[in-house]
Amino acid sequence: MTGDFEILATDGEARYGRLHTAHGVVETPVFMPVGTQATVKTLEPRDLEGMDVQILLSNTYHLLVRPGPDIIGACGGLHRFMGWDRPILTDSGGFQVFSLTKLRKMTEEGVAFNSHVDGRRLFLGPVESMAMQRVLGSDIAMCFDECPPYPSTPKYMEESVARTLRWAAVCREQPRAEGQLVFGIDQGGEFPEIRARCARELAAMGFDGYAVGGVSVGEAEPVLLDEISAGVRHLPADRPRYVMGLGDMVQLAEAAARGVDMCDCVMPTRHARNGSAFTRDGAYPVKAGAWKSDTSPVEPGCTCYCCTHFSRAYVRHLLNVGEILGVRLLTLHNIHCYMAFMAEMREAIRSGSFRPWLAEQRRRLRGAE
Amino acid sequence: MTGDFEILATDGEARYGRLHTAHGVVETPVFMPVGTQATVKTLEPRDLEGMDVQILLSNTYHLLVRPGPDIIGACGGLHRFMGWDRPILTDSGGFQVFSLTKLRKMTEEGVAFNSHVDGRRLFLGPVESMAMQRVLGSDIAMCFDECPPYPSTPKYMEESVARTLRWAAVCREQPRAEGQLVFGIDQGGEFPEIRARCARELAAMGFDGYAVGGVSVGEAEPVLLDEISAGVRHLPADRPRYVMGLGDMVQLAEAAARGVDMCDCVMPTRHARNGSAFTRDGAYPVKAGAWKSDTSPVEPGCTCYCCTHFSRAYVRHLLNVGEILGVRLLTLHNIHCYMAFMAEMREAIRSGSFRPWLAEQRRRLRGAE
Repeated sequence: MTGDFEILATDGEARYGRLHTAHGVVETPVFMPVGTQATVKTLEPRDLEGMDVQILLSNTYHLLVRPGPDIIGACGGLHRFMGWDRPILTDSGGFQVFSLTKLRKMTEEGVAFNSHVDGRRLFLGPVESMAMQRVLGSDIAMCFDECPPYPSTPKYMEESVARTLRWAAVCREQPRAEGQLVFGIDQGGEFPEIRARCARELAAMGFDGYAVGGVSVGEAEPVLLDEISAGVRHLPADRPRYVMGLGDMVQLAEAAARGVDMCDCVMPTRHARNGSAFTRDGAYPVKAGAWKSDTSPVEPGCTCYCCTHFSRAYVRHLLNVGEILGVRLLTLHNIHCYMAFMAEMREAIRSGSFRPWLAEQRRRLRGAE
Repeated sequence: MTGDFEILATDGEARYGRLHTAHGVVETPVFMPVGTQATVKTLEPRDLEGMDVQILLSNTYHLLVRPGPDIIGACGGLHRFMGWDRPILTDSGGFQVFSLTKLRKMTEEGVAFNSHVDGRRLFLGPVESMAMQRVLGSDIAMCFDECPPYPSTPKYMEESVARTLRWAAVCREQPRAEGQLVFGIDQGGEFPEIRARCARELAAMGFDGYAVGGVSVGEAEPVLLDEISAGVRHLPADRPRYVMGLGDMVQLAEAAARGVDMCDCVMPTRHARNGSAFTRDGAYPVKAGAWKSDTSPVEPGCTCYCCTHFSRAYVRHLLNVGEILGVRLLTLHNIHCYMAFMAEMREAIRSGSFRPWLAEQRRRLRGAE
């Protein structure tokens, strides 16, 4: 039933599992492409389905600003609005409120802010965020949290995490869409004790799943991986664990090695718009002059639509003359590359070969020994 | 065989035919979507094939500037470069040379000009245009012609048409890609006698087909239709007749009523980028606030992917927030609408009901009695 999380195999800390949601089952570890404004940029639902994308992330803040809850409500919720029948996770809007908006005023009830689009005064707190996510009808809603700046002092972090925990308790009690799961978010920056205490208090409240938030905000990779370990260690092992905003392929594998089940990031789609192709051996700029007459595909051996139908020379041409199709083809490829990577990761865990697989990915993607 | 043109039915001056090219048969009257830079903007070959697009137009001038003949040649020609196996017609570059470039210098051999992209000095004349079209490997190449400004004096038009005819004679003798057809272009502006003489002289040279060029350049619709009639009347009835740059749906039908077999225009794709949906009952702006919560499709009853999967409210949202997918969905719809219109036109000619069909289109699209 909805909310069930089956752990079917483990390999070290890594786990292969199945999360049951109102719109179907998600195999984990899973990478969620981001559909900020009710679309994964340039792609259609049929494209995502064809690449075995299991679940999307969409952004409550952006959908609140445009088109707003009235329109999405009138259209029957986010799934029907965007024509996507598979699971959706919505963030709470907290991250965007603290990173995109101006003239913020924070109170115990939430944050008043000016929309980054038209300056309109809006308010988002735990009650409002959960109400918006209920209208969206996402399968997984995230608690509204404060995203403290990096770096923050331990004193500020303590106060911030206390507020995030009070808000989590409020979120937990709000009405939900039918079958909607709610995940708590662990904060605490690079302070392991604060992260551990936050995680324990969230676990005591009892959520359907737990996220590690406030990571990958500018800290060095070893710090990032320590933060993930510190957060995950104190979260319930029988529930899904999600690291927000993580997209580097090696880091996805490192997170899985620490017991993480879910990740999301704009990297594969955003880098496509910048002309970068991800491959199983690292990323490269397709616009480079070296490829101008190259008739091989963007990634030799790849089975995506882009690689089976077009040459690097063609994709490079499209990008260089500003044709939208170039971005679309590269987005298709990058998402396909990520999905193939995650499928292989799950198979490695299932077959007990995760450790050598991880070593191989480090070597291929980073050239490390 | 290649170049065969079978006229299988007529209804008044309108004809239903089949043109055989090196990449397959084209049923006429046909509308050719425009793939200026080796792509119909936002669409993939599979999208076009799925909507029964029979033939594309691509622009020699733009492909000469970027990526240039060396790259397309190295990639095996335009069909292989862009992954399109069906017929392609290429224009000569004449229109763009005379409309887009600066510091032009015209001689008997052609036109020296500065590229509109990087200012590079280039030269295009009948020899160079046909050589470029040979590299592209298009199924139908167009003669390099002068596109005189509108309005022009009769004296200038006489001189211009004399030059266009000398250039046509040169084009006719150039080496061709295998199976490539070459069409002559009738010029003469709004002067029926000059158009008639140009048409007769082209016919005497003997081309695989004939175009009426230099129309729809700012003149009123009655003048435009008279120009088409004046051009068509003196062109060989047993060869395909093509009006360049015509895209208004009523005008497509009016052209067919005057014996025209082929048209092309950027209208369905360009209007999509401006947020306009074409329907069988006229165009409308999808961005309008009236549609903000409208759950009906862009064109009720339409069977395209956009209309069978998404609401006006969703497409409007995508356009309003600047999501590429909005333009893509509307481009899919607009091309589908044009293809359905042309299929119906062919059926009307075949079944002898073209006249009432044309009257119905005038009424539906223009509200005329």
